[in-house]
Amino acid sequence: MNQSEFMLKALGLARQAKGFTAPNPCVGALVTCGDRIMGKGWHRAPGENHAEVEAIENARENGADLSSCRMYVTLEPCNHHGRTPPCTAAVIQAGIPEIIIGARDPNSQVQGGGAEFLRNHGLRVTVGVEEQKCLDLIADFSLWQNSGRPYVYLKTASTLDGRIATRTGHSRWVTSANARQMVHQLRSIVGAVLVGGNTFYQDNPALTCRIQEVKNQPWAVVLTSRLPDPDQDFYLLQKRASRTIFWTDKNSAASPRAAGLEARGCRVMGLDAEGPGLDLKLGLEMLRRETGIYYLLCEGGGQLASSLLQQGLADEVWAFVALKILGDSLAVPVTSGREVELMDQTLDFRPGEILNLGPEILLRLFPLQRE
Amino acid sequence: MNQSEFMLKALGLARQAKGFTAPNPCVGALVTCGDRIMGKGWHRAPGENHAEVEAIENARENGADLSSCRMYVTLEPCNHHGRTPPCTAAVIQAGIPEIIIGARDPNSQVQGGGAEFLRNHGLRVTVGVEEQKCLDLIADFSLWQNSGRPYVYLKTASTLDGRIATRTGHSRWVTSANARQMVHQLRSIVGAVLVGGNTFYQDNPALTCRIQEVKNQPWAVVLTSRLPDPDQDFYLLQKRASRTIFWTDKNSAASPRAAGLEARGCRVMGLDAEGPGLDLKLGLEMLRRETGIYYLLCEGGGQLASSLLQQGLADEVWAFVALKILGDSLAVPVTSGREVELMDQTLDFRPGEILNLGPEILLRLFPLQRE
Repeated sequence: MNQSEFMLKALGLARQAKGFTAPNPCVGALVTCGDRIMGKGWHRAPGENHAEVEAIENARENGADLSSCRMYVTLEPCNHHGRTPPCTAAVIQAGIPEIIIGARDPNSQVQGGGAEFLRNHGLRVTVGVEEQKCLDLIADFSLWQNSGRPYVYLKTASTLDGRIATRTGHSRWVTSANARQMVHQLRSIVGAVLVGGNTFYQDNPALTCRIQEVKNQPWAVVLTSRLPDPDQDFYLLQKRASRTIFWTDKNSAASPRAAGLEARGCRVMGLDAEGPGLDLKLGLEMLRRETGIYYLLCEGGGQLASSLLQQGLADEVWAFVALKILGDSLAVPVTSGREVELMDQTLDFRPGEILNLGPEILLRLFPLQRE
Repeated sequence: MNQSEFMLKALGLARQAKGFTAPNPCVGALVTCGDRIMGKGWHRAPGENHAEVEAIENARENGADLSSCRMYVTLEPCNHHGRTPPCTAAVIQAGIPEIIIGARDPNSQVQGGGAEFLRNHGLRVTVGVEEQKCLDLIADFSLWQNSGRPYVYLKTASTLDGRIATRTGHSRWVTSANARQMVHQLRSIVGAVLVGGNTFYQDNPALTCRIQEVKNQPWAVVLTSRLPDPDQDFYLLQKRASRTIFWTDKNSAASPRAAGLEARGCRVMGLDAEGPGLDLKLGLEMLRRETGIYYLLCEGGGQLASSLLQQGLADEVWAFVALKILGDSLAVPVTSGREVELMDQTLDFRPGEILNLGPEILLRLFPLQRE
């Protein structure tokens, strides 16, 4: 196996803890001897061992002679005391002579420091193997370091011709049970699920994760300019009021209806205007500050999806594309609300991962920043 | 390497001649000895050696002891005299004791015969390794065997939200130069390119293949209910009249305008009505009969794409999906013309191949037959 293949294995280890390490990044590490993997490690949760320490301990258990081993790690080892001692010290103490690092640490406290420190202590250090994949893995962590808001997944589920429902609003089912199960897995790791008003009023969604073992259900966040009557028969009001937040304009947030919703147990957050809509960044920052969530999942509809993308607030898009066509120009579009005249005014993406799920494909995409 | 891996290699050989073997199928073959590939062969053009004979000759050149070899072939060897002697005889004469076959021959003259014949002559015969991929490779051949029309590729190029142009009709460019180059490669192997009237009137297309080495330019076929004035300044009328065909209704085909177009050198074919549109199957059969073409490429627009799919006449869809979003519900949709109320009235596909081209993906899809 070459360096790239070992790094992909370390990435695979790291991914197992995706969603459970916040505010820490996901990290995976290997200790190898020649072509053999002697130790595996990954960071499982805040306060637990870092990946490097796990991999070193695992290699020792397997009887590895660390002085003839290499370490592969997806992220530059930390060089400062956090809840755990610095990993650079652990690597040096273990006597491992060579380390291959996927990506530099985006945390300015660390950046570059770990690699230099190891190099100054005589290790051979390589940086940047499968770098983009390693950076994509910690895109959430980079965001937390550089902003005060949660990392936002935008999920869409559309036909091949970009529709989420027929002209009558019928949408069961665009995607297969398999894809819907993946969405519930995503709901199981996020702190909140965000939908627009149309979705709230038309679908009366529960926005819960229907995986049995899941104990902590995500908050429900509804963006709408017209708040519902607090006594109406919506699932969120009747069953989940204390986990439901409405985002609305400042006037509505000061209305008697808002007070009624709060009396029921909901929260109402008033947001400033931003272009034709509301300042979603503000809402996201309030969410992280007030509820301590690190991940939010937006499940549409089409106008909210466009707004998030346009405001640069979607960090990763999970686009499920069902291999079917409606062929009806009046069917409900997956994104809407923009008025675009030229093809160079599109919102653009680069591919992360493309998965063939059979009756549909899943495109994991990263939005490109507009100039 | 296992059987599947060898068969994928044989498939790769076969694909090199895609577009050049009609009316014969693409076939690839390997002669292997243990884990070594001793001979490679594929069918290059009608009248030339079949893949099995090529692979045997190549193995002999490489000094293989055929009596201890295996043959892998993507399609059941022919067992009848065509332009070449039967391949079953060649395999038996070569003394190869074992053959692994991808797919049975869809030709009723052959079906099952080749494999049985070889088995009766003492060979170990396995059928069905990577069968679906082998069947997909000869989907064109199967169609020719079972119908009188050309094999139809439907190409679409849309944004992620299923749009081919902005609300103003601006469409340069949805996809990258790389994707457009792939379309020209497709044009280089097809006998005709089909577009709808809107595309003809709005884009004034040339519908030529812009790869320099290509000598035989495809026919241009335009489906429209309103024929153009023969003297108008359209590229097809001015530069390519003798390679241009109009499909229209029977009334229009009998009009003075049709006569004018024919006087210019175009052909006008009158088609029967079929539902809200015209009977495209009839047009395709006339094309194969009168111009001898085996492949047609439809490049849209959206209504024609829907009609072909709805009439079960698209055999393979090449959907280029640019990783960008317009987010404008008034942008031009990739398919249109249907009126659909329920999500179970979609036109469905199964994936052939999914390619990540960077700024876009290419989905090669096979339409599923509706019950």
